[in-house]
Amino acid sequence: MATVKHKILVLSGKGGVGKSTFSAQLSFALAAMDFQVGLLDIDICGPSIPKMLGLEGQDIHQSNLGWSPIYVESNLGVMSIGFMLPHPDEAVIWRGPRKNGIIKQFLKDVYWGELDFLVVDAPPGTSDEHISIVQFLQATGIDGAIIVTTPQQVSLIDVRKEVSFCKKVGINVLGVIENMSGLSQPLSAFQFKRMTMNGEEEDLTEWVMSCLKEKAPEVLNLVACSEVFDSSGGGAAKMCSEMGVPFLGKVPLDPQLCKAAEEGRSCFSDNKCGVSAPSLKRIIEKLVSTQMAERMDDVA
Amino acid sequence: MATVKHKILVLSGKGGVGKSTFSAQLSFALAAMDFQVGLLDIDICGPSIPKMLGLEGQDIHQSNLGWSPIYVESNLGVMSIGFMLPHPDEAVIWRGPRKNGIIKQFLKDVYWGELDFLVVDAPPGTSDEHISIVQFLQATGIDGAIIVTTPQQVSLIDVRKEVSFCKKVGINVLGVIENMSGLSQPLSAFQFKRMTMNGEEEDLTEWVMSCLKEKAPEVLNLVACSEVFDSSGGGAAKMCSEMGVPFLGKVPLDPQLCKAAEEGRSCFSDNKCGVSAPSLKRIIEKLVSTQMAERMDDVA
Repeated sequence: MATVKHKILVLSGKGGVGKSTFSAQLSFALAAMDFQVGLLDIDICGPSIPKMLGLEGQDIHQSNLGWSPIYVESNLGVMSIGFMLPHPDEAVIWRGPRKNGIIKQFLKDVYWGELDFLVVDAPPGTSDEHISIVQFLQATGIDGAIIVTTPQQVSLIDVRKEVSFCKKVGINVLGVIENMSGLSQPLSAFQFKRMTMNGEEEDLTEWVMSCLKEKAPEVLNLVACSEVFDSSGGGAAKMCSEMGVPFLGKVPLDPQLCKAAEEGRSCFSDNKCGVSAPSLKRIIEKLVSTQMAERMDDVA
Repeated sequence: MATVKHKILVLSGKGGVGKSTFSAQLSFALAAMDFQVGLLDIDICGPSIPKMLGLEGQDIHQSNLGWSPIYVESNLGVMSIGFMLPHPDEAVIWRGPRKNGIIKQFLKDVYWGELDFLVVDAPPGTSDEHISIVQFLQATGIDGAIIVTTPQQVSLIDVRKEVSFCKKVGINVLGVIENMSGLSQPLSAFQFKRMTMNGEEEDLTEWVMSCLKEKAPEVLNLVACSEVFDSSGGGAAKMCSEMGVPFLGKVPLDPQLCKAAEEGRSCFSDNKCGVSAPSLKRIIEKLVSTQMAERMDDVA
């Protein structure tokens, strides 16, 4: 771990907030900036990283230097329990001590080589995996944690616990990202339905499209937004100011980003994720410049 | 536990798929059917149930019969680690053995009285909490597990693991629910935006509404649908047929259901959740009639 310049944990209080999607896209972005990047998935019961990097079904190899990560590109290596399971449907029914064992092995026995960034994608919560990774990494220094959340209170309650976890174990909170912050999608990408009297759905998309094209073409190119997850409590920005941690920004709920994650693609490599990729890019650039500046300070 | 007729686990592979929302609404629905219902939240690091039942900040009481659940109504009692925390922001940083201890205590020391249904809301995954609850409950019989998922492959991969977990430990899978199965919302509930040249957003909602009212009023009452989470892999229905487990149905992603969960309300008590409540109701009625019929068979 001494050959790793920056170690960043990606945490969330609740699951399903897009933590693994963010970890994957952060790694893609850092690699595109020509950094040497390692992505370590320590979610043992539900590893999503192999799928999100397009590496499903790959096996890891053992060399005389240790386990070798799987490389998406020459400067982006990935490690996950997902690569070690004999069958993808098989449940990993492990209690805490066994989970801690594999995490330790991941950190000790994987040969990462020289890395600019190691991104660690943790499962939701504040239990065995989290205590172990912090204990194992803290000896060589952790830059800090990025916490991913969705806007509603039910999720923010758990983020507060995650921030309290970081404070208790002495980890710097690099910032909080509000993900799925409203659905944004061109109006033309929606389907339109009417409920019939007997409770069935009638698809009227074609009719609506031709009607709008004829009568109100100016609305077709607009982006339609829906809040989806209630943010009337002030969302992540308010929570951050209350808890004294940096707010990194919002990323909209973008079906195209979900699709990129499903297909193991970077959202930055084409223009499909036009709704979400610019927000993600701004957040990541801010993070990198801050981390680099702090490292410069350390050296000076 | 001998005084509990039906014990149902609510599981998910991934977090954030709406498992706790379903557990809460299932409990509300069963109580509205005049059953005596207990809802037990065994998510120790991120308990959502107190908030989703409108019971935040409540304390549990000790009687000479044991710990007393908190009652939402006279026939709906709730128990959660959330009620026992001194401060809601505090992280519960416990390793496995301590988590198992509290689960055992919840099952042994809580005085539920006579119950028709005990609904157990588990955290995502297949680890300590899951092994423990199954071990502790299996002596007196578990009806089975309901597994909640979202439509995309990344979530279904983890559901397969959850089904494999149930098979390994000998728990009947009552069925799988596909939640957040597309966003459905009246067109008039959306906001409309245009991106300006300098990357800023311009809100055009008022203009769009008056334009549509004038030129195409017939579209304003339609429901606009977006897939949000990619289901091109066939979604939960296909996975269920492949794995030989029942598919219980789809529930759309309904911002009004999210809001009801945030506010601790039943989605069945008013007409606000018109998009999602009917689907939930159909699923729950199907479940209840099956469980009741099986119990009749057992008796006969």
